[in-house]
Amino acid sequence: MAKNAIVGQSGGPTAVINSSLAGVYEAAKRRGIDKVYGMKHGVQGLLNRDVIDLSEAINGELDIELLKRTPSSFLGSCRYKLPNADEQPEVYENLFNILQEMEIAWFFYIGGNDSMDTISKLSDYGRKTGSSIRFIGVPKTIDNDLEGTDHTPGFGSAAKYIGTTIKEIVRDSLVYDMRSVTIVEIMGRNAGWLTAAAALAKSDDCEGADLLYLPEVDFDPDRFVEKVKQLQEKKGNIVIAVSEGIRTRDGVYVCELQEALGPQDAFGHKILTGTARYLASLLSQRLGIKARAIELSTLQRCSSHMVSRMDITEAYQVGGAAVCAAEEGRTGEMVGLSRISENPYQCITELHDIHQIANQEKKVPRDWINKEGDGVTEEMLSYLRPLIQAELSPVYVSGLPRHIVLT
Amino acid sequence: MAKNAIVGQSGGPTAVINSSLAGVYEAAKRRGIDKVYGMKHGVQGLLNRDVIDLSEAINGELDIELLKRTPSSFLGSCRYKLPNADEQPEVYENLFNILQEMEIAWFFYIGGNDSMDTISKLSDYGRKTGSSIRFIGVPKTIDNDLEGTDHTPGFGSAAKYIGTTIKEIVRDSLVYDMRSVTIVEIMGRNAGWLTAAAALAKSDDCEGADLLYLPEVDFDPDRFVEKVKQLQEKKGNIVIAVSEGIRTRDGVYVCELQEALGPQDAFGHKILTGTARYLASLLSQRLGIKARAIELSTLQRCSSHMVSRMDITEAYQVGGAAVCAAEEGRTGEMVGLSRISENPYQCITELHDIHQIANQEKKVPRDWINKEGDGVTEEMLSYLRPLIQAELSPVYVSGLPRHIVLT
Repeated sequence: MAKNAIVGQSGGPTAVINSSLAGVYEAAKRRGIDKVYGMKHGVQGLLNRDVIDLSEAINGELDIELLKRTPSSFLGSCRYKLPNADEQPEVYENLFNILQEMEIAWFFYIGGNDSMDTISKLSDYGRKTGSSIRFIGVPKTIDNDLEGTDHTPGFGSAAKYIGTTIKEIVRDSLVYDMRSVTIVEIMGRNAGWLTAAAALAKSDDCEGADLLYLPEVDFDPDRFVEKVKQLQEKKGNIVIAVSEGIRTRDGVYVCELQEALGPQDAFGHKILTGTARYLASLLSQRLGIKARAIELSTLQRCSSHMVSRMDITEAYQVGGAAVCAAEEGRTGEMVGLSRISENPYQCITELHDIHQIANQEKKVPRDWINKEGDGVTEEMLSYLRPLIQAELSPVYVSGLPRHIVLT
Repeated sequence: MAKNAIVGQSGGPTAVINSSLAGVYEAAKRRGIDKVYGMKHGVQGLLNRDVIDLSEAINGELDIELLKRTPSSFLGSCRYKLPNADEQPEVYENLFNILQEMEIAWFFYIGGNDSMDTISKLSDYGRKTGSSIRFIGVPKTIDNDLEGTDHTPGFGSAAKYIGTTIKEIVRDSLVYDMRSVTIVEIMGRNAGWLTAAAALAKSDDCEGADLLYLPEVDFDPDRFVEKVKQLQEKKGNIVIAVSEGIRTRDGVYVCELQEALGPQDAFGHKILTGTARYLASLLSQRLGIKARAIELSTLQRCSSHMVSRMDITEAYQVGGAAVCAAEEGRTGEMVGLSRISENPYQCITELHDIHQIANQEKKVPRDWINKEGDGVTEEMLSYLRPLIQAELSPVYVSGLPRHIVLT
């Protein structure tokens, strides 16, 4: 009987999610696995037997290097939430039948807190039914909101992109000898980690963002207007970073203060765009000043031309660690990163019970945000800095970064 | 008597405008100039005697390398338009007095078509009054809409950024197994060169943008909706690049159509940007599909972390050529780039009478756009490709690109 492994990618993509795929693939091949399958579009694809043999899609060392540099999920992704096993056991029977037919011994799922729910449910069902399949979670999310890990692969590259972009925007904002306010909208519905990364821009050669607003702190529009007014008396050009998810004390999203509300996503979440645009028009109205809004948008999660080498390496590492965990017979666990030293930065992998992680959200500690709620502390910066270090150059073909795609 | 030079930057910045500044500075120093002054915020600053000695701001070779990698105008910029000399002669008298006091022999202005108007007026006044000062224009604009040059420094890097970003957005758009429409808004009010650059994304590893809409062709919203509807029958994920300046046959900007659809901002003001957002809501309304809008925004002109080496080199080159022209006694001219061979690409500098260039706008030729007006021809791609070749790595400090700033 063969001993195969399968790996899937789930949830929103990152610039380095494929580095974890490479890590799983290469480690599994080296540890006695016959075939490594990939689920197309996660568990949703698996349910339709939409799988590929990864060795047919990845040919040699160059492909591995391209895979590490390809944004978005190579295998495709899904936002499918498994039903509870006691409510719809047939889904589980079906899935485990497919896995058995494919002679799967190890099952890896690269994702965030929603995806870890899948690992949690499958490993529980496996244990209950005496299956020998091992289910291991591989962390991934630009949002950095996973419990059980110092930080998540994908976050460091997004942070590096945000830091770089804010520096460039600050420079751009200074070009004319006139007052300006620029409001940059950054991803993060409930956790402000990405917005905090805007603080990295401040350095010898850049005054950085002047104000940062994270969703962890209630947003007060009146105080915001007052603050900008005061700042304008001191300096001509102001750059502000806001999380898309900031809310007022009443729990109303700032973007909801604007009438024009788009449709909801598949989970009934409201789509949050327009926070920066709303704030720009608020400033125009109250202070009579021109303010421009910039949304970093999707580019935050797919700019693989600007990744952190540290992030790429760690993403690859957690993939390998997941394979080791399966080999050791672990199941129902997620690989986490543990920072054992900050300066010099040292980080190791460890395993965590998936039930402590699935469906949880790790927010920015209040004491890493300044007292006024419009900036971050030195502690936050010390936490962030190691994660954006060093680069991985794209492979350029005809002037543009080369990717690898499933054909 | 000393022989000094002065250089200014004007109009919207680019990622490589400082490479031209470096080119002027280094060439002037080598060609017998005593001091090279920089105008802060262009002619507007010069009128206030707000100038610096560049040798005090640029210290050695590392600074030159940083300057080439620093986005936005190192000296600051302005959008000041000189009045006509016969209407306000006192402005010219004042300016020429300042230049004489500073013992300026050569005057360089790095800018686009508005800035070339300044060179035109100053050189005309100089000729009329028998001044020996030489006025030379150095081309710059991401918009690529300057006459008298095959292309403008700044355009190639913006094109490379757009091509790269579209590739990443296309990959991101494919991540879920569901239909999606992504509309990317690109700069260019009257000329579609930048939007055309989105076509570069199409390659072996990327299907590219599906539709491109340039301002040179009248935009028909009904045909657009119909086209997307047809495309959706063939493929699940559609990426569309639109110029911010597209207009209907009646000359109405598409972003102005917004009113008809309804949503205004929270204060009842018409939202002033939003061509892509308007089109996304149009598709939602007419086809009942989810469409997202992405504005590349300021990042197109300031992403010096992703420049074209060809562009950096040519930007530096035109700065040097401007100095040579002044040395040869030319005045009232702009340095242009002339492509003498396309494959292999070879490009030389030449001089053009400024009066043929100032206030003109070079648009995309209609026969470089396809018949249907929603894509570009192979001729356009052959034109674009050489301009995005090769890279110039940022100088990274603590994980972020380093810039040089005026202190």
